[in-house]
Amino acid sequence: MELWFMGTSAGMPIAERNVSSIVLSLTRTKGSLWMFDCGEGTQHQLLRTPLKLSRLTKLFITHLHGDHLFGLPGLLSSRSSLGGTASLDVYGPPGLREFLDAALRLSDTHLNYPFQVHELEAEGAVLDEDGYTVECALLDHRIACFGYRIAEKPRSGSLRVDVLTAAGVPPGPAYGKLKAGEDLRLEDGSVIRAADVLCDPIPGRVVAVMGDTRPCEGALRLAQGADVLVYEATFGADLAEKAEQYGHSTTLQAAETAKAANISRLLITHFSSRYGPDQLAELETQARGVFPQTDAAMELQAYPIPSPSFRTNLA
Amino acid sequence: MELWFMGTSAGMPIAERNVSSIVLSLTRTKGSLWMFDCGEGTQHQLLRTPLKLSRLTKLFITHLHGDHLFGLPGLLSSRSSLGGTASLDVYGPPGLREFLDAALRLSDTHLNYPFQVHELEAEGAVLDEDGYTVECALLDHRIACFGYRIAEKPRSGSLRVDVLTAAGVPPGPAYGKLKAGEDLRLEDGSVIRAADVLCDPIPGRVVAVMGDTRPCEGALRLAQGADVLVYEATFGADLAEKAEQYGHSTTLQAAETAKAANISRLLITHFSSRYGPDQLAELETQARGVFPQTDAAMELQAYPIPSPSFRTNLA
Ligand SMILES: [Zn+2]
Ligand SMILES: [Zn+2]
Repeated sequence: MELWFMGTSAGMPIAERNVSSIVLSLTRTKGSLWMFDCGEGTQHQLLRTPLKLSRLTKLFITHLHGDHLFGLPGLLSSRSSLGGTASLDVYGPPGLREFLDAALRLSDTHLNYPFQVHELEAEGAVLDEDGYTVECALLDHRIACFGYRIAEKPRSGSLRVDVLTAAGVPPGPAYGKLKAGEDLRLEDGSVIRAADVLCDPIPGRVVAVMGDTRPCEGALRLAQGADVLVYEATFGADLAEKAEQYGHSTTLQAAETAKAANISRLLITHFSSRYGPDQLAELETQARGVFPQTDAAMELQAYPIPSPSFRTNLA
Repeated sequence: MELWFMGTSAGMPIAERNVSSIVLSLTRTKGSLWMFDCGEGTQHQLLRTPLKLSRLTKLFITHLHGDHLFGLPGLLSSRSSLGGTASLDVYGPPGLREFLDAALRLSDTHLNYPFQVHELEAEGAVLDEDGYTVECALLDHRIACFGYRIAEKPRSGSLRVDVLTAAGVPPGPAYGKLKAGEDLRLEDGSVIRAADVLCDPIPGRVVAVMGDTRPCEGALRLAQGADVLVYEATFGADLAEKAEQYGHSTTLQAAETAKAANISRLLITHFSSRYGPDQLAELETQARGVFPQTDAAMELQAYPIPSPSFRTNLA
């Protein structure tokens, strides 16, 4: 699993940063890409990465502000031109369907792949498939805005080969049955219980991606215990009033949410265009004062999300 | 007057070229910019030029295909964020208003400047103001598509100071009246006719900007005698059948239109994404075989349009 930021700028692009879009490159569903938000120029940014638009299978829109949305019609169209044929699902707030219908119909755009828009009517489960669950919650912005929590399902633990060997069970079909949770009756009539020879399930990773928001209960709930939290820090610590007024968060508020949710790593993004490239380090420093495991997200580089077993080895 | 190409790629962006947008930087209306088409990423391209979005006052859309349109909502929004307050007029085919209404309303975008959409209902005059006229004609594409002819109005010629001096008329208010076309009665009763002491009017420049099209009568009419013709060459000479099928032109057809319309300079653009940067010279060569004064348009550089007097001096 890797996160890539296509854009980290709030409101409009500047020379050094594009508007919002984040790609989650999955490992479990071989090679699939999921995208969160699609500001104008997202498809251009993808051209500067090894990520292939044809591998995109799911798109989650946090809210319909232009800097999170206006790249979507062009990206859908180019995915078709580039030969993408796999089905594509797009999730987002009500109004998303009307926007896409108008843009695709009036531009006479025809997509060469099955395409579904899912408007989110309520908080809760968004999907449960292919080893992942996604849930959403309402955030606190100027218009309806959702955050997403993406969780890998736990994988069954490995077999305790040492115990099986001691019990005289050689490798073979029996191992597969035990691994699948079936108990095994031996020739001498004794029973080996699967539960006794299976290690604990390996927990899946959790990535929480927020849209624009003031600090709020929904974000805190979605972020709970996440391996990585992506949270906006539109403004520096000194502009809390502006953040409140426009429905955004400061660096400190982002860090406080991360701390309260007990997450492992915070990536802040969606920086106001007032901050030049030299000022992002200062924003990062502000957040680290509250939550040290914070980075200001950089565009067009991979942020690997370590697997839990890898974490354990390091611990 | 200068032309700038923000994008020269057909259909979708590639690493080296963006989708369609052309800026005409006017001299007569001090500092104003007019734009033709606005593909996705046009505002990003502007950031790489000295051209200021706040100076944009008129926008002409040739047709509603996404590669000519999808940058428009974001560009309008950023113009507002960047402090643009001057009124903005947008011209284009029917459907343009519905597209913009949907995009701006659903994204909750509010523009801090007066903004009018003018849907073109017929061929002919589009506007006549500030020393310029613009007319449009229908082209031959897959959907309704307009070309535009922008003409500077002629300026009154300079006064023949040699004749006036010989007649004993000293510089002063009388010169202004003559220049404005009023005849002058001298103290001795004789009359100096304005027409006799005014040089010929200085003709204005003509720029013709076509949208996507097969060769057609409308393009030929708009291009007639233009100083610069911008015409699409989506395909090389060997792909005439594809051009016909998709409503486009080849390099040869572009050059033949230029020759038939007796223009001064042809700029070809809208190159299929199949052509890499190394292949544009070959497209240029094909067109030059028919019309030598052809260039394949390059992005983000100025193409000055010489004034007629400058042309005369050179002749
Ligand atoms: Zn927003
Ligand atoms: Zn077209």
